[in-house]
Amino acid sequence: MESITLLITGGTLDKKYNERNGQLEFSKSHCKEIIENNRASLKINYKELMLVDSLDMTPEQRTEIVASCINATDDKIVITHGTDTMVITASEIAKQNLSKTIVLTGAMIPFSLKKSEAEFNIGTALAFAQTLSVGVYIAMNGQFFKWDNVRKNLELGKFETLANA
Amino acid sequence: MESITLLITGGTLDKKYNERNGQLEFSKSHCKEIIENNRASLKINYKELMLVDSLDMTPEQRTEIVASCINATDDKIVITHGTDTMVITASEIAKQNLSKTIVLTGAMIPFSLKKSEAEFNIGTALAFAQTLSVGVYIAMNGQFFKWDNVRKNLELGKFETLANA
Amino acid sequence: MESITLLITGGTLDKKYNERNGQLEFSKSHCKEIIENNRASLKINYKELMLVDSLDMTPEQRTEIVASCINATDDKIVITHGTDTMVITASEIAKQNLSKTIVLTGAMIPFSLKKSEAEFNIGTALAFAQTLSVGVYIAMNGQFFKWDNVRKNLELGKFETLANA
Amino acid sequence: MESITLLITGGTLDKKYNERNGQLEFSKSHCKEIIENNRASLKINYKELMLVDSLDMTPEQRTEIVASCINATDDKIVITHGTDTMVITASEIAKQNLSKTIVLTGAMIPFSLKKSEAEFNIGTALAFAQTLSVGVYIAMNGQFFKWDNVRKNLELGKFETLANA
Repeated sequence: MESITLLITGGTLDKKYNERNGQLEFSKSHCKEIIENNRASLKINYKELMLVDSLDMTPEQRTEIVASCINATDDKIVITHGTDTMVITASEIAKQNLSKTIVLTGAMIPFSLKKSEAEFNIGTALAFAQTLSVGVYIAMNGQFFKWDNVRKNLELGKFETLANA
Repeated sequence: MESITLLITGGTLDKKYNERNGQLEFSKSHCKEIIENNRASLKINYKELMLVDSLDMTPEQRTEIVASCINATDDKIVITHGTDTMVITASEIAKQNLSKTIVLTGAMIPFSLKKSEAEFNIGTALAFAQTLSVGVYIAMNGQFFKWDNVRKNLELGKFETLANA
Repeated sequence: MESITLLITGGTLDKKYNERNGQLEFSKSHCKEIIENNRASLKINYKELMLVDSLDMTPEQRTEIVASCINATDDKIVITHGTDTMVITASEIAKQNLSKTIVLTGAMIPFSLKKSEAEFNIGTALAFAQTLSVGVYIAMNGQFFKWDNVRKNLELGKFETLANA
Repeated sequence: MESITLLITGGTLDKKYNERNGQLEFSKSHCKEIIENNRASLKINYKELMLVDSLDMTPEQRTEIVASCINATDDKIVITHGTDTMVITASEIAKQNLSKTIVLTGAMIPFSLKKSEAEFNIGTALAFAQTLSVGVYIAMNGQFFKWDNVRKNLELGKFETLANA
């Protein structure tokens, strides 16, 4: 079995309630817990790069994500990322033309909430990373999208192809 | 977007607590609820064939599942199934040499329990159905297995390739 | 069985995730759902007065809560309320010297999150309302406190008697 | 603050899914986890007497529960118990005419399931134990019942007074 690199960058998926100020913030990633609790017997190389809201992601942080994709020894990479700028990061990675299958995913509702789709989405992203050919993709709403044919529909809270836009 | 046929047969995934007798039993499938709550924007043709524990599945019921695979108008099929005889049903379907991608999945812990992997597994199965080539597969533990190279390790409660057995 | 009036005012307990802006906000109260799902066979007269963060509660809104206590036909009243100013509202109600048992409760973590204590707290508040003598109380952390001998310990996120402060 | 003795005897509340045989069984009690996760700041003396389905409870085990009530140093006792014979155990305890407030509770749906009322019920039982006068009670469905005026309505899955029967 080939191993998969999981790059963690935060996003809504990993936000947690801070009872002192009533805000959803980052403390630690839930990704490992999600994958282990769901009994995945995959070899995952976890790498927590940052825990940020993707609207606050700096160019330097985006560069760090790209560099981590370049440097990863695995050919299959899943990246957890906020949904708002997921497409931007995907396009930055795509410029590198890496011979790797890279799948970005996230969630519209934090894992810490009862109705989150985080577990489902991470499941689909791990599956797509194992089966899709070389390229950069976004896995959301049960589908995969090529990095250059996807946008987040802010009104519906769903990702869609540009043809649908 | 191509549509996916979802054949529902029951299994642990769909068991629900019956408070009158204290047993886990079947009342109605949770599959549609799972897929909709996780915001999948896939076109799914749901077909509930039966709700049975796969240890109780009769030859006639297995024949019905095979027939539903043959008759499905979609080329991509996901089947929810109990884990105990999932491999047997997969091999029955494989005998037909259909030009379809067929993925069986299920869960070790019912969706009605707090720690179920049902949502994660259905996520992976839907993803594998969209990306794997023609054939019959089992999607469990975050992986996909060819129907003729998989067994359920009863001791670990996990699926593995025959080479690992 | 005597009926209980449940006055709903919002607070952290009832906050829900708004996926459009990533904030925890109010849409509708979960109190009825909580009580029914937990199989309470009490006669509850629900009255949703407002859905506000108690830090934003105006003097007019507090007056409305006091008036609702005065006008309630039940002798037993439970009020859901944000924790930050729960003691202030309790003292406003206490000034009326009503011949009723009035119990304020809330939650540190919203019901919409996986780790909320909302159900437990509402359970205790309903129980205290049925058994305590006439007076104004706060039910938090499994305990009941008299309105004039309680404070919220912001550091611990727990309520305690003034003697402990 | 007075401390409360919590006698754990099992019942549906504490049943957990055994994935090897597909049955709901006992492994360890969830009571401490429930009370701590709900942020109760009560002094609880936990005593796990047994973990049994109350239909399987032997006369010797019932005698052990009665003895534990007699020997408890706390005047307030909560007992978790299966619902089917909760009334029988309550009446055995009542024969002792102890100068203690003793409250039995349980759940119709195990805590390990998503829709359990275990947390709510334990909340009510702890509240009733703190406020009711000396006697033996059952706390279910948000209410308290005197041991000699209660029955489980098997059809409704709810407890009710004998007058309602």
